[in-house]
Amino acid sequence: MEKGLNCVIGENSMIPDDVKLGHNVIIEDNVIIGEGSYIDTNSIIRSGTTLGKNSFIGANCIIGEYQMDFCLYRVYHEHALFIGDGALVRSGSIIYTGSKIGTDFQTGHHVILREKSELGDHVSIGTLSDIQGNCRIGSYVRIHSSVFVAPDTSIEDFAWISPRVMLTNDPTPPSDNMKGIVVRSFAVIAASAIILPGLEIDSDSLIAAGAVVTKDVPRYAVVAGNPGKVISDIRKVKNKVTGEPAYPWREHFSNHMPWSESDFETWYNELDIEAKNKLRINHNM
Amino acid sequence: MEKGLNCVIGENSMIPDDVKLGHNVIIEDNVIIGEGSYIDTNSIIRSGTTLGKNSFIGANCIIGEYQMDFCLYRVYHEHALFIGDGALVRSGSIIYTGSKIGTDFQTGHHVILREKSELGDHVSIGTLSDIQGNCRIGSYVRIHSSVFVAPDTSIEDFAWISPRVMLTNDPTPPSDNMKGIVVRSFAVIAASAIILPGLEIDSDSLIAAGAVVTKDVPRYAVVAGNPGKVISDIRKVKNKVTGEPAYPWREHFSNHMPWSESDFETWYNELDIEAKNKLRINHNM
Amino acid sequence: MEKGLNCVIGENSMIPDDVKLGHNVIIEDNVIIGEGSYIDTNSIIRSGTTLGKNSFIGANCIIGEYQMDFCLYRVYHEHALFIGDGALVRSGSIIYTGSKIGTDFQTGHHVILREKSELGDHVSIGTLSDIQGNCRIGSYVRIHSSVFVAPDTSIEDFAWISPRVMLTNDPTPPSDNMKGIVVRSFAVIAASAIILPGLEIDSDSLIAAGAVVTKDVPRYAVVAGNPGKVISDIRKVKNKVTGEPAYPWREHFSNHMPWSESDFETWYNELDIEAKNKLRINHNM
Repeated sequence: MEKGLNCVIGENSMIPDDVKLGHNVIIEDNVIIGEGSYIDTNSIIRSGTTLGKNSFIGANCIIGEYQMDFCLYRVYHEHALFIGDGALVRSGSIIYTGSKIGTDFQTGHHVILREKSELGDHVSIGTLSDIQGNCRIGSYVRIHSSVFVAPDTSIEDFAWISPRVMLTNDPTPPSDNMKGIVVRSFAVIAASAIILPGLEIDSDSLIAAGAVVTKDVPRYAVVAGNPGKVISDIRKVKNKVTGEPAYPWREHFSNHMPWSESDFETWYNELDIEAKNKLRINHNM
Repeated sequence: MEKGLNCVIGENSMIPDDVKLGHNVIIEDNVIIGEGSYIDTNSIIRSGTTLGKNSFIGANCIIGEYQMDFCLYRVYHEHALFIGDGALVRSGSIIYTGSKIGTDFQTGHHVILREKSELGDHVSIGTLSDIQGNCRIGSYVRIHSSVFVAPDTSIEDFAWISPRVMLTNDPTPPSDNMKGIVVRSFAVIAASAIILPGLEIDSDSLIAAGAVVTKDVPRYAVVAGNPGKVISDIRKVKNKVTGEPAYPWREHFSNHMPWSESDFETWYNELDIEAKNKLRINHNM
Repeated sequence: MEKGLNCVIGENSMIPDDVKLGHNVIIEDNVIIGEGSYIDTNSIIRSGTTLGKNSFIGANCIIGEYQMDFCLYRVYHEHALFIGDGALVRSGSIIYTGSKIGTDFQTGHHVILREKSELGDHVSIGTLSDIQGNCRIGSYVRIHSSVFVAPDTSIEDFAWISPRVMLTNDPTPPSDNMKGIVVRSFAVIAASAIILPGLEIDSDSLIAAGAVVTKDVPRYAVVAGNPGKVISDIRKVKNKVTGEPAYPWREHFSNHMPWSESDFETWYNELDIEAKNKLRINHNM
């Protein structure tokens, strides 16, 4: 292991020889680091963390952060954090213990991801986003900067959440009757939109920037305004540069998507029936 | 004192024997730490800070941060920071010097609390919130994630400020004529609402998610929309699960409240007349 | 050089004798620090950074942060960061490599400023703001707290961007057809306003708090609402305290402005014709 000054390595931690550590890195007890990974300066890897191969943890991160409300005295508990191979966690981010995260996870800076969540593969969470825990997030979900995701939210594969979107969960704050939001596959929520608690945003819908969504959003709907109203059908929205239909976006956009080497239709047709059903689209809109 | 590697302890600092420090903790001169407290790795406690007993300061925090505009050369000045017993400041937060904070203070991560503010007891400030200084915040005030509080804001006891609420202070930016907002006791401001400068949000009112409030809000009013309009009376709002009236919330919600062991009415009836008047409610709405 | 414990100084770095470093400061290879500067505890100055004289870098900052998408293995590349004299970067901020920043730059805390941007002199970026890179920002631009600036944005001299403003760039997310916003000189965008992609906000216009701007904004227009509509002329807006016209604000407000010692008109009349044209105002509105 190549390491900088003043690193501290806890007991029972497994760190392969090719792992590199910056300066002042703290690796607590019972940590497993995957081969080829890099932990940058000042970062802390808490007890019970398993980090996949070829991962990069930027400077000043805390990985496996304790849930302080029930763990004030830092007693080691059964919760643990699993992060898959190829993670790229940018500097200043804090990932709690008690979650399971797939491969190729990415974050921006100063991200907070709380406990008890499950994330699929290729999930990206932007700078300054705050994911409050107990969430289910599918694969290839893109959450941009400064997004707020309340506890109990469910976001399906390929949902696209633009900067500063707010997904709420308390219909009558404060209360003990939280109702999480469901965002279906391929839904697009544009910048700074607010979704009220317990609503379902169906696949292939588009929430316009700044909309305040107060009702369930059906498939293909375009919702805008405060309060949000259905103003159009997504199939009528044109790309302003090309003049072609902009949606479904999967036919025009492939950056970091699994069909980036071919096209969506080719990729989709090779899926098995279960995978197709999970995407909730019949691909001939 | 139990401490990790490379800690630096300044002169004239008082640190009881049972205090624990993580690694690389910097405690500057003239600091007082209460018994039973824990300062986690990489945190910095600036000169002039007094921290109460049994407090926890998470990793990468800066407590007693200097006001750089008039203190660029770090000359020690008469400003100081007082934090009461039982504080829980989560990792990455920055608390300025020049404020006075009561007992059982809590913060999320990456919180910024600026100078010259007074906070009561049991105040909670959520992750990524930015409290700009010179504010008066009562006891049991709950400020959630990503809330922005402009200078000169006044928030009374038991006010409930949901995520990403914005409390502004400049009617005609930029200007030198700031007018702070007053939020009265038991007012509820839902997610992402914006309150214009100088307004008063009266007790037992409810500002809906995404509202842009342009006028004073009277007691019991429910305000929604952009621009915000009174759309209902809070006494008519029902809990969506139970079907019962959701407000006043103090009759249904007691999590971390002083009446959590009994009920609001029992607790209230035992208050003296001065404490009752301070709450500004006659409890028979 | 006066320095704290455990500092690490890379090869080929130029650090004058009067520079001071806190504890655990990491200065990588090929860094140039200006005379009289101070780098506070735990901060990291990455390879290729040039920092001007009399600058202050607060604690826990990362200056010259790598672009991890194309630099995962930290190969040194030709990009570099230049920051002019007199910078004040407050604690927790992250400034990427690949930008050029003028003199008297200021930031709040936990700011992220991404790569490939050019900033003029006297630019201020508030706490928790996220500037996404490839932006052009003029001199004396004031960006407040929690502002989101998408890639490809252009902001001219003396523009005033209030807290939590959002400047977007993708008309039909997700797409590859980004269109950056242009904000002209002396435009004022009030708190939490959202500007849709590709729009031009002309000089001396005023976007009200919470507005969702969907069309270009002409000079002197006051835009409010969702969707935003022109509701008035800025020349009719009065200061609520003095009763006098509040705009153009340059006639009433001089805090940190180059005319703070005299008045705007005196300052303006001494400019040469090129500088006057750059400001885009004929000063007799």
